[in-house]
Amino acid sequence: MNAEIIKRRIRAVCRLMKKQKISCLVVTKPANVTYTTGFLGDDSWVVITGRAVYLLTDSRYIEQAQGECRGCRIIERIASLPETTASLLKKLKSAQAVGFEKSATLADFEALKKQAKTQLKKAANVVEEARSCKDSSEISAIMAAGRIAAQALKQTRRYIKAGISESELAGRLDFQIRKLGAQNSFETIVAFGANASRCHHQPTGKKLKRNDYILIDFGARYKGYCCDLTRCFVVGKPGGLALYKKVYDAVQRAQAAAIKMVKAGAAIKQVDSAARETIAKYDLPVYGHGTGHGLGIEIHEEPFLNAENKGKLKAGQVITIEPGVYIPGKLGVRIEDDVLVTESGCKILSRSCPHGPLQCG
Amino acid sequence: MNAEIIKRRIRAVCRLMKKQKISCLVVTKPANVTYTTGFLGDDSWVVITGRAVYLLTDSRYIEQAQGECRGCRIIERIASLPETTASLLKKLKSAQAVGFEKSATLADFEALKKQAKTQLKKAANVVEEARSCKDSSEISAIMAAGRIAAQALKQTRRYIKAGISESELAGRLDFQIRKLGAQNSFETIVAFGANASRCHHQPTGKKLKRNDYILIDFGARYKGYCCDLTRCFVVGKPGGLALYKKVYDAVQRAQAAAIKMVKAGAAIKQVDSAARETIAKYDLPVYGHGTGHGLGIEIHEEPFLNAENKGKLKAGQVITIEPGVYIPGKLGVRIEDDVLVTESGCKILSRSCPHGPLQCG
Repeated sequence: MNAEIIKRRIRAVCRLMKKQKISCLVVTKPANVTYTTGFLGDDSWVVITGRAVYLLTDSRYIEQAQGECRGCRIIERIASLPETTASLLKKLKSAQAVGFEKSATLADFEALKKQAKTQLKKAANVVEEARSCKDSSEISAIMAAGRIAAQALKQTRRYIKAGISESELAGRLDFQIRKLGAQNSFETIVAFGANASRCHHQPTGKKLKRNDYILIDFGARYKGYCCDLTRCFVVGKPGGLALYKKVYDAVQRAQAAAIKMVKAGAAIKQVDSAARETIAKYDLPVYGHGTGHGLGIEIHEEPFLNAENKGKLKAGQVITIEPGVYIPGKLGVRIEDDVLVTESGCKILSRSCPHGPLQCG
Repeated sequence: MNAEIIKRRIRAVCRLMKKQKISCLVVTKPANVTYTTGFLGDDSWVVITGRAVYLLTDSRYIEQAQGECRGCRIIERIASLPETTASLLKKLKSAQAVGFEKSATLADFEALKKQAKTQLKKAANVVEEARSCKDSSEISAIMAAGRIAAQALKQTRRYIKAGISESELAGRLDFQIRKLGAQNSFETIVAFGANASRCHHQPTGKKLKRNDYILIDFGARYKGYCCDLTRCFVVGKPGGLALYKKVYDAVQRAQAAAIKMVKAGAAIKQVDSAARETIAKYDLPVYGHGTGHGLGIEIHEEPFLNAENKGKLKAGQVITIEPGVYIPGKLGVRIEDDVLVTESGCKILSRSCPHGPLQCG
């Protein structure tokens, strides 16, 4: 990871720490560890003071950390993470107001509190806030992930034939993603027919019929960054096609209505309601999940687009817009794209993956 | 999930709750949610009292929960998990000594504490302890996962040829696992040559040479249960073959020495040291990671086999035994199998995946 980028991130994090009156932050969330050091391994914490950044890792990751991290001090631990952190905090004179991430486990908090002889302040959303607005290198990585996902789906479409199972189709798609040098950003969802009414369906051995519906929700992770896409297809002429087309049309218009609202300063709940109101106008059931979520190092991160969110969108945030319609036992349609919030509106980052043609196979 | 099995599990959990003087337990860890209800989705908590089990989930998962869960009451939430849990706790008269899992986040603990007007007791390892010893259906699932992993590796060996990248080989293997109706139990590690000295290497675009070394650490998840295997291969006649063979021999003997110690009642640290001492006798560097870990619904669960663990093995636990030797910049060898602890010794559950032949391609 470029040392200059990391330096800029640390400066932003330090400013946010100051705001919360924290002079030293213990970072435990893997995505936050990656963001502040460039390190892509697991089981490691970071300690940030105004003077230095420390990565606490173990023998399994030393070689990797030396390659990935610039400008941070790597500490090889033998003891547990709370113990190693406590020892470091004792040595650091600047560590007076120590912040501990609220996303950490209660067990880790208790262990560190017991061992470190300093007060711990529960810190919420310090690194998350810095992460929420992406820099150009991050946006490029998300776009590259989007192109890989689009290419993988394109190469997988030829396998969409009667007889293939949900599980096999998911496997084919995942393989293409891997072959293109990326990983899955989450477990691929492939749902045939009525299975698509379960938003988080796990692929089964269910086989595609000659006339059927398909929903695929998937993403690639490239250079540590995620994309997240959902596409729906029709194979042959399944029953209920008229209803399906009405639903598809409603979802597409709902997505467009929400995307039209996206702009720096826009109220998040208004983006959310734009999509819901469109679907309600079609007299179709309004989805129970959020209209979208931020994405970056994590597949789900700030901001979360729902009716309860009182926040506003900020330029540089990358969010999904993914309304859906679900009729249990019958069908499910969701369309999901990744969108960059700009000062004047937005830019769709997943254009490389076209919505159509709906007819497939 | 079979209702009788769930009932038996809940009875065991209730006994452990009683031991910790808890009359009501809030379960937040996904693996513990699955264990106590059969539910395989995300973002859901369970509340267990002496009288009933409640699954708190949202609209995305209602259909799935209705299919997967027997004998528990499903509550569809609109509010957050802590809010919904707080409302339920207020209604439950039995909810006096409420336990909250220490594996939960500090943020969730704070939110629930604020909203529920009852005291929260931090509970460690209640469901984890119940889960640690497997019943016959769980052992069958782990064995089935092992057979799928073995079959997938067998079918992938023909792709082990000069020119394939780590990433593509990992993708081929993952695809076979999917095709056989399973998922990955964790992100597959494929490391060529010196990359294998990083225990948790992430597959790259690095291509296999005509004469090279390979390490593959992978697993299948079947019916919710994981297996975890590591195999090493040699392609052609790479340089340093004599050293490699010495290392491989040392690791194999270290694994055998540890497996020989496995038995209900055996001291965990003695199993750990049996493997380390064997490697030390070869004058090779002793690995920094644990000798193994429990596995089941989670890929890493209790017990953890290391020098600090003062516990004893119990019949019914399924553990990995996975010593390794790592020489940075040169090579890495690890051999990993899954082992069931029995009263009289142990049973290797991953026999279907042979260690040899070491020579490949």
